[in-house]
Amino acid sequence: MSRSPGRKQENHKISRELFVLTYGALVAQLCKDYEKDEDVNACLDRMGYSIGIRLIDDFLARSAVKKCRSYSETADMIAQVAFKMYLGVTPSVSCSSAAGNEFSLILDKNPLVDFVEELPVERASLCYCNLLCGVIRGALEMVHLAAEVSFLQDRLKGDAVTEIGITFLRKPEDRKHRR
Amino acid sequence: MSRSPGRKQENHKISRELFVLTYGALVAQLCKDYEKDEDVNACLDRMGYSIGIRLIDDFLARSAVKKCRSYSETADMIAQVAFKMYLGVTPSVSCSSAAGNEFSLILDKNPLVDFVEELPVERASLCYCNLLCGVIRGALEMVHLAAEVSFLQDRLKGDAVTEIGITFLRKPEDRKHRR
Repeated sequence: MSRSPGRKQENHKISRELFVLTYGALVAQLCKDYEKDEDVNACLDRMGYSIGIRLIDDFLARSAVKKCRSYSETADMIAQVAFKMYLGVTPSVSCSSAAGNEFSLILDKNPLVDFVEELPVERASLCYCNLLCGVIRGALEMVHLAAEVSFLQDRLKGDAVTEIGITFLRKPEDRKHRR
Repeated sequence: MSRSPGRKQENHKISRELFVLTYGALVAQLCKDYEKDEDVNACLDRMGYSIGIRLIDDFLARSAVKKCRSYSETADMIAQVAFKMYLGVTPSVSCSSAAGNEFSLILDKNPLVDFVEELPVERASLCYCNLLCGVIRGALEMVHLAAEVSFLQDRLKGDAVTEIGITFLRKPEDRKHRR
Protein backbone atom coordinates (compact mmCIF):
# COMPACT_ATOMS: atom_id res chain seq x y z
CA MET A 1 0.00 0.00 0.00
CA SER A 2 3.02 2.28 -0.14
CA ARG A 3 3.95 4.49 -3.05
CA SER A 4 7.30 6.12 -2.94
CA PRO A 5 8.25 8.56 -5.69
CA GLY A 6 11.67 8.30 -7.29
CA ARG A 7 14.09 10.01 -4.89
CA LYS A 8 15.21 13.12 -6.66
CA GLN A 9 18.10 15.35 -5.83
CA GLU A 10 17.03 17.59 -2.99
CA ASN A 11 15.84 20.95 -4.22
CA HIS A 12 16.36 24.11 -2.20
CA LYS A 13 14.07 26.16 -4.40
CA ILE A 14 10.55 26.70 -3.17
CA SER A 15 7.58 28.88 -4.08
CA ARG A 16 7.62 31.90 -1.87
CA GLU A 17 3.91 32.15 -1.03
CA LEU A 18 4.05 29.87 2.03
CA PHE A 19 6.96 31.94 3.31
CA VAL A 20 5.12 35.21 2.71
CA LEU A 21 2.02 33.97 4.54
CA THR A 22 4.08 32.54 7.40
CA TYR A 23 5.86 35.87 7.74
CA GLY A 24 2.45 37.53 7.94
CA ALA A 25 1.50 35.18 10.78
CA LEU A 26 4.70 36.14 12.60
CA VAL A 27 4.02 39.87 12.30
CA ALA A 28 0.40 39.38 13.37
CA GLN A 29 1.55 37.45 16.44
CA LEU A 30 4.00 40.21 17.40
CA CYS A 31 1.22 42.78 17.00
CA LYS A 32 -0.77 40.73 19.51
CA ASP A 33 2.24 40.56 21.83
CA TYR A 34 3.29 44.21 21.72
CA GLU A 35 1.05 47.22 21.94
CA LYS A 36 3.55 49.70 20.50
CA ASP A 37 4.62 49.57 16.86
CA GLU A 38 8.15 50.52 17.94
CA ASP A 39 8.35 47.35 20.02
CA VAL A 40 7.14 45.19 17.14
CA ASN A 41 9.67 46.86 14.81
CA ALA A 42 12.49 46.32 17.31
CA CYS A 43 11.52 42.69 17.81
CA LEU A 44 11.41 42.04 14.04
CA ASP A 45 14.82 43.66 13.71
CA ARG A 46 16.26 41.50 16.51
CA MET A 47 14.78 38.34 15.00
CA GLY A 48 16.14 39.32 11.61
CA TYR A 49 19.58 39.91 13.09
CA SER A 50 19.60 36.40 14.58
CA ILE A 51 18.57 35.03 11.21
CA GLY A 52 21.15 37.07 9.29
CA ILE A 53 24.08 35.85 11.36
CA ARG A 54 23.05 32.27 10.52
CA LEU A 55 21.96 32.84 6.94
CA ILE A 56 25.28 34.32 5.85
CA ASP A 57 26.97 30.92 5.84
CA ASP A 58 24.28 29.52 3.60
CA PHE A 59 24.57 32.56 1.36
CA LEU A 60 28.35 32.36 0.98
CA ALA A 61 28.23 28.62 0.34
CA ARG A 62 25.39 28.75 -2.15
CA SER A 63 26.32 31.91 -4.03
CA ALA A 64 30.05 31.20 -4.27
CA VAL A 65 30.60 34.96 -4.54
CA LYS A 66 34.02 36.50 -4.27
CA LYS A 67 35.00 38.98 -1.61
CA CYS A 68 33.54 42.42 -2.29
CA ARG A 69 36.14 45.19 -2.70
CA SER A 70 33.90 48.16 -1.98
CA TYR A 71 30.66 49.17 -0.27
CA SER A 72 29.21 49.64 -3.73
CA GLU A 73 29.99 46.04 -4.71
CA THR A 74 28.56 44.85 -1.41
CA ALA A 75 25.31 46.73 -1.96
CA ASP A 76 25.04 45.28 -5.48
CA MET A 77 25.68 41.80 -4.10
CA ILE A 78 22.89 42.16 -1.55
CA ALA A 79 20.45 43.37 -4.20
CA GLN A 80 21.35 41.19 -7.15
CA VAL A 81 22.38 37.96 -5.51
CA ALA A 82 20.95 37.79 -1.97
CA PHE A 83 17.52 39.33 -2.62
CA LYS A 84 17.18 37.30 -5.79
CA MET A 85 18.12 34.10 -3.96
CA TYR A 86 15.95 34.51 -0.87
CA LEU A 87 13.03 36.65 -2.04
CA GLY A 88 13.00 36.16 -5.81
CA VAL A 89 13.26 39.87 -6.59
CA THR A 90 16.10 42.21 -7.52
CA PRO A 91 15.96 45.73 -6.06
CA SER A 92 17.73 48.52 -7.88
CA VAL A 93 20.62 50.10 -6.00
CA SER A 94 21.53 53.74 -5.66
CA CYS A 95 24.32 55.40 -3.75
CA SER A 96 22.97 58.29 -1.75
CA SER A 97 26.04 59.89 -0.17
CA ALA A 98 29.12 61.60 -1.48
CA ALA A 99 31.14 59.64 1.08
CA GLY A 100 30.05 56.47 -0.73
CA ASN A 101 28.89 54.63 2.37
CA GLU A 102 25.11 55.10 2.08
CA PHE A 103 23.03 53.04 -0.31
CA SER A 104 19.39 52.51 -1.06
CA LEU A 105 17.79 49.29 -2.23
CA ILE A 106 14.64 50.22 -4.09
CA LEU A 107 11.88 47.70 -4.55
CA ASP A 108 9.15 48.49 -7.05
CA LYS A 109 7.35 45.50 -5.66
CA ASN A 110 7.89 43.93 -2.27
CA PRO A 111 7.03 40.23 -2.34
CA LEU A 112 6.78 40.04 1.45
CA VAL A 113 3.58 42.12 1.35
CA ASP A 114 1.92 40.14 -1.46
CA PHE A 115 -1.01 39.25 0.76
CA VAL A 116 -1.16 42.50 2.73
CA GLU A 117 -3.60 45.13 1.50
CA GLU A 118 -2.73 47.93 3.89
CA LEU A 119 -1.64 48.47 7.46
CA PRO A 120 -4.45 48.80 10.02
CA VAL A 121 -5.03 52.43 11.07
CA GLU A 122 -3.80 51.69 14.59
CA ARG A 123 -0.55 50.25 13.21
CA ALA A 124 0.56 53.27 11.19
CA SER A 125 4.15 53.15 12.49
CA LEU A 126 4.66 49.46 11.88
CA CYS A 127 7.65 48.58 9.69
CA TYR A 128 6.02 45.43 8.43
CA CYS A 129 9.16 44.06 6.76
CA ASN A 130 11.61 45.16 9.43
CA LEU A 131 12.89 41.60 9.71
CA LEU A 132 14.72 42.21 6.42
CA CYS A 133 16.70 45.10 7.92
CA GLY A 134 17.81 42.88 10.76
CA VAL A 135 18.77 40.08 8.38
CA ILE A 136 20.94 42.43 6.30
CA ARG A 137 22.51 43.95 9.41
CA GLY A 138 23.27 40.55 10.94
CA ALA A 139 24.67 39.08 7.73
CA LEU A 140 26.89 42.12 7.12
CA GLU A 141 28.20 41.98 10.66
CA MET A 142 29.37 38.43 10.09
CA VAL A 143 31.54 39.62 7.21
CA HIS A 144 32.91 42.39 9.43
CA LEU A 145 30.81 45.19 8.00
CA ALA A 146 28.95 47.22 10.60
CA ALA A 147 25.90 48.89 9.12
CA GLU A 148 22.67 50.64 9.99
CA VAL A 149 19.75 49.33 8.01
CA SER A 150 16.24 50.78 7.99
CA PHE A 151 13.22 51.43 5.83
CA LEU A 152 13.28 54.90 4.28
CA GLN A 153 10.12 54.48 2.22
CA ASP A 154 7.39 51.87 2.29
CA ARG A 155 4.61 51.33 -0.25
CA LEU A 156 2.50 49.97 2.59
CA LYS A 157 2.57 53.50 4.01
CA GLY A 158 1.63 55.15 0.75
CA ASP A 159 5.12 55.82 -0.63
CA ALA A 160 5.70 55.27 -4.35
CA VAL A 161 8.35 52.61 -3.77
CA THR A 162 9.79 50.59 -0.92
CA GLU A 163 13.31 51.75 -0.05
CA ILE A 164 15.75 50.14 2.36
CA GLY A 165 18.63 52.35 3.44
CA ILE A 166 22.00 50.82 4.28
CA THR A 167 24.67 53.00 5.92
CA PHE A 168 28.05 51.32 6.29
CA LEU A 169 29.59 52.56 9.51
CA ARG A 170 33.29 51.95 8.94
CA LYS A 171 35.33 52.15 5.81
CA PRO A 172 37.48 49.15 4.89
CA GLU A 173 40.44 51.57 4.93
CA ASP A 174 39.71 52.36 8.58
CA ARG A 175 39.77 48.72 9.45
CA LYS A 176 42.97 48.13 7.56
CA HIS A 177 44.65 50.98 9.40
CA ARG A 178 43.55 49.59 12.71
CA ARG A 179 45.20 46.21 12.11
CA MET B 1 24.50 57.30 -9.23
CA SER B 2 21.70 54.81 -9.82
CA ARG B 3 22.19 51.33 -11.16
CA SER B 4 19.10 49.43 -12.10
CA PRO B 5 19.42 45.84 -13.26
CA GLY B 6 17.47 44.75 -16.32
CA ARG B 7 13.92 44.06 -15.17
CA LYS B 8 13.47 40.32 -15.41
CA GLN B 9 10.26 38.38 -15.32
CA GLU B 10 9.26 38.09 -11.67
CA ASN B 11 10.37 34.83 -10.16
CA HIS B 12 8.32 33.08 -7.50
CA LYS B 13 11.08 30.61 -6.70
CA ILE B 14 13.23 31.34 -3.68
CA SER B 15 15.80 29.52 -1.59
CA ARG B 16 14.07 28.07 1.39
CA GLU B 17 16.62 28.89 4.11
CA LEU B 18 15.21 32.34 4.93
CA PHE B 19 11.80 30.74 5.24
CA VAL B 20 13.09 27.97 7.49
CA LEU B 21 14.84 30.46 9.80
CA THR B 22 11.82 32.77 9.86
CA TYR B 23 9.63 29.83 10.80
CA GLY B 24 12.04 29.08 13.62
CA ALA B 25 11.67 32.65 14.87
CA LEU B 26 7.90 32.24 14.82
CA VAL B 27 8.00 29.03 16.87
CA ALA B 28 10.47 30.58 19.31
CA GLN B 29 8.16 33.57 19.77
CA LEU B 30 5.18 31.32 20.47
CA CYS B 31 7.26 29.39 22.99
CA LYS B 32 7.85 32.71 24.76
CA ASP B 33 4.15 33.53 24.58
CA TYR B 34 2.74 30.20 25.77
CA GLU B 35 3.97 28.12 28.64
CA LYS B 36 2.28 24.89 27.56
CA ASP B 37 3.43 23.00 24.48
CA GLU B 38 -0.21 22.16 23.75
CA ASP B 39 -1.01 25.85 23.43
CA VAL B 40 1.92 26.43 21.07
CA ASN B 41 0.82 23.43 19.00
CA ALA B 42 -2.76 24.68 18.86
CA CYS B 43 -1.63 28.16 17.89
CA LEU B 44 0.61 26.84 15.10
CA ASP B 45 -2.27 24.73 13.85
CA ARG B 46 -4.63 27.73 13.83
CA MET B 47 -2.07 29.90 12.04
CA GLY B 48 -1.50 27.14 9.50
CA TYR B 49 -5.23 26.81 8.93
CA SER B 50 -5.49 30.53 8.14
CA ILE B 51 -2.56 30.17 5.77
CA GLY B 52 -3.98 27.05 4.09
CA ILE B 53 -7.32 28.65 3.26
CA ARG B 54 -5.43 31.44 1.45
CA LEU B 55 -2.67 29.32 -0.05
CA ILE B 56 -5.05 26.97 -1.85
CA ASP B 57 -5.88 29.58 -4.52
CA ASP B 58 -2.20 30.08 -5.23
CA PHE B 59 -1.71 26.32 -5.36
CA LEU B 60 -4.58 25.68 -7.77
CA ALA B 61 -3.53 28.55 -10.02
CA ARG B 62 0.13 27.65 -10.07
CA SER B 63 -0.11 23.87 -10.24
CA ALA B 64 -2.94 23.73 -12.80
CA VAL B 65 -3.84 20.32 -11.38
CA LYS B 66 -7.05 18.58 -12.30
CA LYS B 67 -9.72 17.66 -9.79
CA CYS B 68 -8.72 14.64 -7.72
CA ARG B 69 -11.08 11.67 -8.03
CA SER B 70 -10.13 9.88 -4.83
CA TYR B 71 -8.56 10.40 -1.42
CA SER B 72 -5.56 8.50 -2.70
CA GLU B 73 -5.10 10.93 -5.59
CA THR B 74 -5.51 13.85 -3.20
CA ALA B 75 -2.85 12.52 -0.85
CA ASP B 76 -0.49 12.02 -3.79
CA MET B 77 -1.18 15.55 -4.98
CA ILE B 78 -0.33 16.99 -1.56
CA ALA B 79 2.91 15.04 -1.39
CA GLN B 80 4.14 15.24 -4.95
CA VAL B 81 2.93 18.66 -6.05
CA ALA B 82 2.21 20.81 -2.98
CA PHE B 83 5.13 19.74 -0.76
CA LYS B 84 7.46 19.94 -3.74
CA MET B 85 6.23 23.41 -4.62
CA TYR B 86 6.26 24.97 -1.15
CA LEU B 87 8.94 23.03 0.72
CA GLY B 88 11.10 21.55 -2.03
CA VAL B 89 10.70 17.98 -0.82
CA THR B 90 8.49 15.06 -1.82
CA PRO B 91 7.25 12.85 1.01
CA SER B 92 6.31 9.28 0.23
CA VAL B 93 2.66 8.40 0.71
CA SER B 94 1.13 5.33 2.28
CA CYS B 95 -2.48 4.44 2.85
CA SER B 96 -2.95 3.19 6.37
CA SER B 97 -6.61 2.12 6.57
CA ALA B 98 -8.71 -0.51 4.85
CA ALA B 99 -11.43 2.13 4.50
CA GLY B 100 -9.03 4.08 2.29
CA ASN B 101 -9.44 7.40 4.05
CA GLU B 102 -6.26 7.45 6.17
CA PHE B 103 -2.90 8.37 4.69
CA SER B 104 0.59 9.03 5.90
CA LEU B 105 3.05 11.45 4.37
CA ILE B 106 6.50 10.23 5.31
CA LEU B 107 9.43 12.60 5.25
CA ASP B 108 12.91 11.11 5.46
CA LYS B 109 14.14 14.66 5.87
CA ASN B 110 12.09 17.61 7.04
CA PRO B 111 13.45 20.87 5.60
CA LEU B 112 11.61 22.96 8.19
CA VAL B 113 13.94 21.66 10.91
CA ASP B 114 17.17 22.20 8.94
CA PHE B 115 18.52 24.56 11.58
CA VAL B 116 17.05 22.80 14.61
CA GLU B 117 19.27 20.36 16.44
CA GLU B 118 16.82 19.05 18.99
CA LEU B 119 13.88 20.21 21.05
CA PRO B 120 14.72 21.67 24.46
CA VAL B 121 14.00 19.23 27.30
CA GLU B 122 11.21 21.44 28.62
CA ARG B 123 9.54 21.43 25.21
CA ALA B 124 9.25 17.68 24.76
CA SER B 125 5.61 17.83 23.61
CA LEU B 126 6.12 20.58 21.08
CA CYS B 127 5.01 19.71 17.54
CA TYR B 128 7.55 22.05 15.98
CA CYS B 129 6.11 21.83 12.47
CA ASN B 130 2.45 21.84 13.46
CA LEU B 131 1.83 24.80 11.16
CA LEU B 132 2.01 22.31 8.26
CA CYS B 133 -0.89 20.29 9.66
CA GLY B 134 -2.99 23.43 9.83
CA VAL B 135 -2.02 24.44 6.30
CA ILE B 136 -3.05 21.04 4.91
CA ARG B 137 -6.30 21.06 6.89
CA GLY B 138 -7.19 24.59 5.79
CA ALA B 139 -6.35 23.99 2.14
CA LEU B 140 -8.34 20.72 2.05
CA GLU B 141 -11.33 22.39 3.64
CA MET B 142 -11.39 24.94 0.83
CA VAL B 143 -11.80 22.12 -1.69
CA HIS B 144 -14.59 20.67 0.46
CA LEU B 145 -12.55 17.91 2.05
CA ALA B 146 -12.77 17.82 5.82
CA ALA B 147 -9.72 16.16 7.33
CA GLU B 148 -7.86 15.63 10.56
CA VAL B 149 -4.14 16.23 10.17
CA SER B 150 -1.50 15.58 12.79
CA PHE B 151 2.05 14.44 13.34
CA LEU B 152 2.28 10.71 14.01
CA GLN B 153 6.08 10.55 14.14
CA ASP B 154 8.72 13.24 14.38
CA ARG B 155 12.46 12.88 13.92
CA LEU B 156 12.88 15.82 16.30
CA LYS B 157 11.45 13.53 18.97
CA GLY B 158 13.74 10.64 18.12
CA ASP B 159 11.51 8.81 15.65
CA ALA B 160 13.15 7.29 12.57
CA VAL B 161 11.11 9.42 10.17
CA THR B 162 8.70 12.31 10.27
CA GLU B 163 5.15 11.21 9.52
CA ILE B 164 2.09 13.37 9.00
CA GLY B 165 -1.23 11.55 9.25
CA ILE B 166 -4.22 12.73 7.20
CA THR B 167 -7.64 11.26 7.93
CA PHE B 168 -10.35 12.30 5.49
CA LEU B 169 -13.58 12.63 7.42
CA ARG B 170 -16.20 12.23 4.70
CA LYS B 171 -16.22 10.17 1.57
CA PRO B 172 -16.99 11.89 -1.73
CA GLU B 173 -19.86 9.39 -2.14
CA ASP B 174 -21.44 10.71 1.07
CA ARG B 175 -21.33 14.21 -0.22
CA LYS B 176 -22.81 13.22 -3.57
CA HIS B 177 -25.73 11.47 -1.85
CA ARG B 178 -26.41 14.54 0.23
CA ARG B 179 -26.90 16.81 -2.79
